[in-house]
Amino acid sequence: MLVAVTGARGRIGTILRARLADRYQIRPVTRAPAVDRGVIAELADADGLAAAFRGCDAVIHLGGAAATDAPWDRVLADNIAGCRNVFEAARVSGVRRVVFASTNHVVGMHEEDARPELYELGVPRVIGLGDDVRPDSLYGVSKVFGEAFGRYHVERHGMICVCLRIGSVVAAPDPGDGPPGTDVWSVTPPEVRRRLRATWLSHRDCAGLFAAALEAPVRWAVAYGTSANPRQIWDVAGARDTIGFVPVDSAPAWLWSSTGSEVAE
Amino acid sequence: MLVAVTGARGRIGTILRARLADRYQIRPVTRAPAVDRGVIAELADADGLAAAFRGCDAVIHLGGAAATDAPWDRVLADNIAGCRNVFEAARVSGVRRVVFASTNHVVGMHEEDARPELYELGVPRVIGLGDDVRPDSLYGVSKVFGEAFGRYHVERHGMICVCLRIGSVVAAPDPGDGPPGTDVWSVTPPEVRRRLRATWLSHRDCAGLFAAALEAPVRWAVAYGTSANPRQIWDVAGARDTIGFVPVDSAPAWLWSSTGSEVAE
Repeated sequence: MLVAVTGARGRIGTILRARLADRYQIRPVTRAPAVDRGVIAELADADGLAAAFRGCDAVIHLGGAAATDAPWDRVLADNIAGCRNVFEAARVSGVRRVVFASTNHVVGMHEEDARPELYELGVPRVIGLGDDVRPDSLYGVSKVFGEAFGRYHVERHGMICVCLRIGSVVAAPDPGDGPPGTDVWSVTPPEVRRRLRATWLSHRDCAGLFAAALEAPVRWAVAYGTSANPRQIWDVAGARDTIGFVPVDSAPAWLWSSTGSEVAE
Repeated sequence: MLVAVTGARGRIGTILRARLADRYQIRPVTRAPAVDRGVIAELADADGLAAAFRGCDAVIHLGGAAATDAPWDRVLADNIAGCRNVFEAARVSGVRRVVFASTNHVVGMHEEDARPELYELGVPRVIGLGDDVRPDSLYGVSKVFGEAFGRYHVERHGMICVCLRIGSVVAAPDPGDGPPGTDVWSVTPPEVRRRLRATWLSHRDCAGLFAAALEAPVRWAVAYGTSANPRQIWDVAGARDTIGFVPVDSAPAWLWSSTGSEVAE
């Protein structure tokens, strides 16, 4: 399977290039300069994207503004107009499946209303697909748009779209890769680490999530993606049913141990 | 109450100017030329909109592309960037309440999947707020965006937003105004008239719907709006609970009588 990946130089793009290379042929799509074996195309250039996608079996769309404080001009150009161009380019180049990097920030206000208690072990509240979208940012609004745009393409243009509401993918190495350097975590506030206990998506599980989205026998799905963490605030269990995603890692205990929290086994 | 109305020259804008003038002071906002007592501002011009909204108690946002076959360029410029400019202008000019003209086309694929049986009297299926958005058009996608954008402004900027998923407002006069000229309906296919039996929103009820949205003691609501038709395919009854909208008209029998359908009393 030949898979085009937009935003291939970003954090998740870099992870997927490294970890999915043995399962798929990856075609990285980036702004200049190109990545090794990649193609250059701007999100603003639908024709360039269509050329980049030609011959591919699927597109993973990661490109665009990824920060919750991204200003409107960037959100409009990259996450709305750019997202449209990606779907349009996939359609005209005959690529049926698009895996769309959505975000938990489409439901961020549910989380914000319920924290910090929400992150505690044993709290039953789980935010699922039955909950309204309540974006916490312009970035989150743009991903609501992208999900709706994907669904439109499924129903009107016969495409396949899987939207992944991705948890927290951090730059630090995976727990299986050994304990992190103190430089990474000593500057991370305890409340952020407490949240990460619930929202962590390891690099390995991130790759597994996207692989599941590439292979799921569905026409349309939305799935939350985190590792099998001791506390889960989103309905990640549902992703097993919708796209067959089963995480194998869990947020590492060293992440929050200095906060004095207990660790679930 | 001083109410700015964008798209004031359009079909619904014209109805509201005529039928709400005795209850509110209306400030029509249009592209050039101006409407009587109105202000000129382009949807592309956030500063111009802010000037137009200054001193108002609410904004009714009707402006933008209103056709389900509107092309992407218009949808992007008018319904996405323009909608953002309207909310931003309301925010900076201190207008707290925005009534947003959404559409039933945000759930249009539910309808399309179930028709034509959906329109029959006695069929129980009602599309409600618990159903996923499934836009049937780029226009519908843009309204999903607008609803999410409104909710973001409620939760992040302390605004009030009521989104109206409007039924079918036709140019023909209201049933209370007497039978229509044959020129209007003789060219309307029977299947369209059959649908109108369920989706009709009379001019009087249209005005009542927007008045309810202006006065509802809510911070956020989404409401379907049709008249009290013999068949109702959307959860209009729910609009009584959310914004206090109670339609007084019903789709007129002459609308579909030539199709041989029975008329519910």
